[in-house]
Amino acid sequence: MANCSIALQILPLEASREQILKTVDAVIDYLQLQEVTLFVGPFETTIEGDFDDLMRLLQESVRRAGAVHASIFANVKINYHERGQVLSIEDKVAKYQTLPSEQ
Amino acid sequence: MANCSIALQILPLEASREQILKTVDAVIDYLQLQEVTLFVGPFETTIEGDFDDLMRLLQESVRRAGAVHASIFANVKINYHERGQVLSIEDKVAKYQTLPSEQ
Amino acid sequence: MANCSIALQILPLEASREQILKTVDAVIDYLQLQEVTLFVGPFETTIEGDFDDLMRLLQESVRRAGAVHASIFANVKINYHERGQVLSIEDKVAKYQTLPSEQ
Amino acid sequence: MANCSIALQILPLEASREQILKTVDAVIDYLQLQEVTLFVGPFETTIEGDFDDLMRLLQESVRRAGAVHASIFANVKINYHERGQVLSIEDKVAKYQTLPSEQ
Repeated sequence: MANCSIALQILPLEASREQILKTVDAVIDYLQLQEVTLFVGPFETTIEGDFDDLMRLLQESVRRAGAVHASIFANVKINYHERGQVLSIEDKVAKYQTLPSEQ
Repeated sequence: MANCSIALQILPLEASREQILKTVDAVIDYLQLQEVTLFVGPFETTIEGDFDDLMRLLQESVRRAGAVHASIFANVKINYHERGQVLSIEDKVAKYQTLPSEQ
Repeated sequence: MANCSIALQILPLEASREQILKTVDAVIDYLQLQEVTLFVGPFETTIEGDFDDLMRLLQESVRRAGAVHASIFANVKINYHERGQVLSIEDKVAKYQTLPSEQ
Repeated sequence: MANCSIALQILPLEASREQILKTVDAVIDYLQLQEVTLFVGPFETTIEGDFDDLMRLLQESVRRAGAVHASIFANVKINYHERGQVLSIEDKVAKYQTLPSEQ
């Protein structure tokens, strides 16, 4: 059971719509290459795992966003349980979604 | 094309985990009965449509949460474009998800 | 005792730094003219009062932001207590600030 | 000129009002002992400085919150400018506040 989940929204400021999308995509592409459970929603991407690992990914994600477009705003939600009992992404969304495997 | 999308996270305070889940479910159940595009993610539910309609749904959602559990905190993201050009939920998540219809 | 406090951050998108500041200032100027307790912080402005009144001010604030710059993102925090017992702004910041009247 | 400012709101979950306040105070007390510009508002505390330093303080703040109360939710805003040009806390609030030194 994971002790953390983090949701991240990258909002490039002083940027065109094209720059915004390019920056957001660069961060999601980076996170998808990591060994971490990931869920992409319309406003934020959620990752789940060990607190220290996720904080490292968060820091690297913001840095990579800043390398694509200099002025970055990020909204971050951190759910941390000191004894490892955060609700999982699957627990939270499974009952509301028709997953492909259930077709 | 919609002029607004709103993401809503309900966080009941001074509540047990059971009360938290019951309150969140009550709001999602309410929103699912409305005529509005809806996307449920692990931390927030996103709706899309007309700004005035969505603000009314937001107000009613928080009120209904408070009827289940008195002490409510809510995180809300509002994306509003005065000329009706916000990115749609589908535009933002389609490229990252295998939708059932694409199986 | 108020039953609600709302924090609002306006983030104009696809905007220059000048447009961002102009839009944010227009909303704060509007809120300062309302009969509502107000606290301006570095990332968000907090108002306190009756839930329905504050939701109306929130809606009008986002609309006014959109009239200055068409593409608007807003972060909103809503603290609502169904029986009127949210912590006041003063309760929360007084112990950390040297208020002018205490000099 | 700093390259980052971070706003942090700690929301202990499954906690009494007393536990909420105790946890929030523990984090603010910790941050006030650090060598960092700090602004306490009603919903969030803002710190300003070097990106890597602030991310370290953020991680330690969440960990300390979890040591006081196990189940923690945190809202975090990160403003990062790759070339060091974020607006300062003082730039953003000075025009709206009567600072003690200006009495």
